[in-house]
Amino acid sequence: MFSKILVANRGEIAVRIIRACRELGIHTVAVYSEADKDALHAELADEAICIGPARSSDSYLNVQQILSAAIVTKAEAIHPGFGFLSENARFAAMCEEMNVVFIGPKSKTIDDMGNKINARKLMREAGVPVVPGSPGVIHDVEEAVQIADEVGFPIMLKAAAGGGGKGIRKVYNKEDLPHHFSSAQQEAKAAFGDDSMYIEKIVYPARHIEIQILADNFGHVIHLGERDCSLQRNNQKVMEESPSVVIDEQKRQEIGMTAVKAAQAVDYCNAGTIEFLMDEKGNFYFMEMNTRIQVEHPITEMVTGVDIVKKQLEIASDQELTIEQKDVQFNGHAIECRINAENPSFNFAPSPGKIENLLLPAGGMGIRVESAMYSGYTIPPYYDSMIAKVIAYADTRLGALMKMQRALSELVTEGIVTNAEFQLDLISHPKVLSGDYNTAFLQEEFLPNWTPED
Amino acid sequence: MFSKILVANRGEIAVRIIRACRELGIHTVAVYSEADKDALHAELADEAICIGPARSSDSYLNVQQILSAAIVTKAEAIHPGFGFLSENARFAAMCEEMNVVFIGPKSKTIDDMGNKINARKLMREAGVPVVPGSPGVIHDVEEAVQIADEVGFPIMLKAAAGGGGKGIRKVYNKEDLPHHFSSAQQEAKAAFGDDSMYIEKIVYPARHIEIQILADNFGHVIHLGERDCSLQRNNQKVMEESPSVVIDEQKRQEIGMTAVKAAQAVDYCNAGTIEFLMDEKGNFYFMEMNTRIQVEHPITEMVTGVDIVKKQLEIASDQELTIEQKDVQFNGHAIECRINAENPSFNFAPSPGKIENLLLPAGGMGIRVESAMYSGYTIPPYYDSMIAKVIAYADTRLGALMKMQRALSELVTEGIVTNAEFQLDLISHPKVLSGDYNTAFLQEEFLPNWTPED
Repeated sequence: MFSKILVANRGEIAVRIIRACRELGIHTVAVYSEADKDALHAELADEAICIGPARSSDSYLNVQQILSAAIVTKAEAIHPGFGFLSENARFAAMCEEMNVVFIGPKSKTIDDMGNKINARKLMREAGVPVVPGSPGVIHDVEEAVQIADEVGFPIMLKAAAGGGGKGIRKVYNKEDLPHHFSSAQQEAKAAFGDDSMYIEKIVYPARHIEIQILADNFGHVIHLGERDCSLQRNNQKVMEESPSVVIDEQKRQEIGMTAVKAAQAVDYCNAGTIEFLMDEKGNFYFMEMNTRIQVEHPITEMVTGVDIVKKQLEIASDQELTIEQKDVQFNGHAIECRINAENPSFNFAPSPGKIENLLLPAGGMGIRVESAMYSGYTIPPYYDSMIAKVIAYADTRLGALMKMQRALSELVTEGIVTNAEFQLDLISHPKVLSGDYNTAFLQEEFLPNWTPED
Repeated sequence: MFSKILVANRGEIAVRIIRACRELGIHTVAVYSEADKDALHAELADEAICIGPARSSDSYLNVQQILSAAIVTKAEAIHPGFGFLSENARFAAMCEEMNVVFIGPKSKTIDDMGNKINARKLMREAGVPVVPGSPGVIHDVEEAVQIADEVGFPIMLKAAAGGGGKGIRKVYNKEDLPHHFSSAQQEAKAAFGDDSMYIEKIVYPARHIEIQILADNFGHVIHLGERDCSLQRNNQKVMEESPSVVIDEQKRQEIGMTAVKAAQAVDYCNAGTIEFLMDEKGNFYFMEMNTRIQVEHPITEMVTGVDIVKKQLEIASDQELTIEQKDVQFNGHAIECRINAENPSFNFAPSPGKIENLLLPAGGMGIRVESAMYSGYTIPPYYDSMIAKVIAYADTRLGALMKMQRALSELVTEGIVTNAEFQLDLISHPKVLSGDYNTAFLQEEFLPNWTPED
C-alpha cells in the first residue's frame, strides 16, 4: 500500500478520500487554491500545499502545479476525486510518465471512453447495447439528415468530446437540423477544440440506471449493483437510490454482467460507472462510462458494505480484489440527497456565502453526512455548489425515505440558502415515495408544480 | 403506534429518541430545565416544555412536572432515556396509574431488579449464576464476618438499594469489617433511606460482559449479543465494543440464553441489559440488570442492524417482536468511545463551558456520532459530563479501531477540554489493540503510565 498520496480535489470528496487514507495509515497531501486556505480538506490532511489562485484553471486544473506538489512532497500517487482532472487523459498520462500512480484507469482508457463516438463503437463491438444512432462521426448535414430519418425524430445531436452540456442539441424535425448542426459544431469546436458530432435516439423519459464497477490490475472485474439516478434537473442528478425499484434480481445480474463485459472490453482498471438508460419495457442502452469515483458512490457502499474509495487505493497499489462477484451481497436500501448552495426560488442560482450556524443531521442510526462544512465556513463562489451529501440507509426503502425526511428537516445552514427544502418536498412527493418516477418527472411534473414555502 | 410521546431526558439520548420518533411519524414533546433553554433536544422536538430550574431534582427528576407536561400535551407515553427517572419504579407506577405508557418494563420489574438483594435472589432461583456472597440481607456485623469468612477476603460490602457508588466498601480483612459495615450502612441510609447490606465476592480483574435483551408484552424474549465494557474508570464505562474478543459463538449463545432466562424469570418487557462479570476461566456471574436503554446501545445496533430505540417504541405500543432469535445476525465490529467534557490532566474534573468551534467527525463510511452539541452551544455545569458518543463500525475489529482513531483525531471542541485525546491514546495502546484488557487495565495499568500531551 502507498505510504503517501496527494488528493487533487477539494470539498467533501477530498475530505472523504483523506479520511479513507487515514484509516489505512496513508499520509495525505492536500492541495488548495487561495480561496480555499480555510477549507477543511487542507486542515485535515497531513500536508497542504497552495497551488494557485481561486480560479480552477489556475489551481485545481493546474496540471503542472499539482504534479510539482506531488513530486516535492514525494507522494506516490494522486487521487483526482471527481470533476477537475479526474477524467483528463492527458493528466493521467503525465502522471504515468512521472511515475506517480494516477488512482483511476489507464490514460488510454480515459481517452477511449472520453470520446463518446469511440466509446459507442467499443461498446457495440463488445456486444453491449448502445442507444440507437449514428455508427460514427457525422461528416455533414446530409449525413445527419439521413441518419436522423432512420432513427426517427426527435433526435439528440451530440459532440463526440462532449461534457457539461456543451455541443448538445435536441432536434425535433428535419427543417431544424441544418441550423442546429452548425451551431452545435461551432460550440463544440470552441469548448473542446473538436467538432466531431454524432446522433442518438432520444430515450426519454427513461430510468437512469448505472452500475458500479470495480476492476483490479489482474483482470478481475466485479459489479456492485445499480444506482437509480433518474431524478435530475438539467441533466444534473439530484437524488439517487440503490437498489432501484424497477430492477429485480434477474435484471440486476443482466445489467451488472453487461457492465462487467463493457469494463473488460476496454481493459478497465479501478472504480468506474457504466451509465445506462432503461426504457419502460426494460430495454437498456449504454449511455456513457464515468472513469472515476462518482458523487453518488456512498449509496452503493451502504447496501454492499464495500468501501469504494479504499478499494480504489488498494487496486491502484496493485492489490488483487479480495471480493468475488458471489461475495457481493445487497442489503437494505440507501438514498442520497445532494445539498447545494443554491436558491430554488431564483432558478437555483448559486448562493455562496458564510455559514453562520451549521447543524448537520449526522447521528441516529443510518444517517451519513459527507461534507466539508463547519460553522463559520465561507463557501467560495468559484466552485461547484454541492456542499453536502445526506445519505440515509435502512432495511426498507420506506425506512430510508423516513430517515431522509428526518435528516433533511434537521439540517441548519444559517447564512446561506440551500436546496434542502426542495429536496424534502421532492422525497415527500407521492410518486417519489412510491418509486414511480423517471428522467422527466422532476423537471416536467414536480418542478412546475412546486412552490417554495415562505 | 403512539402518535405523540414525551421524552423525559436531555442531551444526546433525548435527541436520539426524538430522531427515532420522527422517523416513525411520532410527534415528540421535549422537556427542558431553565439551563437547557437553548438545548438541541428542545429545538428538535415538535413541542418543548420548561419543567423547572437547572437542578435535576427541580426539573429532570421532577415527577409531578413531567407527568403534568405529558397530560397537558396529551402525550400517550413517556420515554425516560437513561439516568434521571429511567429506573425509578415509583415514577413508572405513577405513569401506569395516570394511563401514560412508561416506555420500559413494568414498575414491579424495576423495583424487583433495583433492590440488588432481591435481584440476586430472583436470579439464583432462575438458575442464573450470581456472584458468590450472602443469600440475603445481612442483619449484623457477626453475620457479615461469618459470610465474609466463607466467601474469602477481600469482599465487597454493598447497599441493597445501591447506585452511583454509594454505600459500597471494599473490605480486605476481618478487622476492618465492623468499621466499614457501620459506615456503609449509615451512607446507605442517608442516600437511599434503606440500610440493608449484602456481601459479594470480588470478581476482579474480570471482563464486564453485558447482554442486550428485547422482550415484548407477549412473552417473546431475544438477546442481541454481548458488549464488552471492561474499560472503566471509577466504575464508569469509558469505551465499549461488540463483539467481545473473549466471547466465541458458543459462549455468546450460552450467556445470551442465560440472559434470556433471567429476563423471562422476572417477566421482563422492553429493552434491558443483563450485566455479567466473567473470570479468566470463562465463568460468568450475574451482576445486575439495567432496566432501561443504555449509553452503549449503538454498538449493538451497528452489529445487528436492529434499531433498539425503535424496538422500545414498538414494544411499548403493544406490538409483537418481529424478529426471532434465529433472525439475529452479528456482522462486523463496533466500538464506542464516550466523549466527556472533563479534563484528564486534572483528575478528570468536569469542564463545562461554551463550545466556540465544533467539528464532529461524522462522515466517511462507518462513523456515527451521537451528540446534542452545536457550535456556540454552552455545556451547562449541572448534568452528566458526557457530551458525545463516537461509534465506529467496520468489517473487522482492527478496521473499527482505525476508524475510531481517525474520527477521534478529527474531533474539534474549541472552548472546552474533553477526554478525546485520552480516548485516542487508550484505543492506541497495544493491549487495547490486541483486546487483552480487563476491568483493572485502565485504572491500574493504563492511567498510571499515561501523560497528556501538552
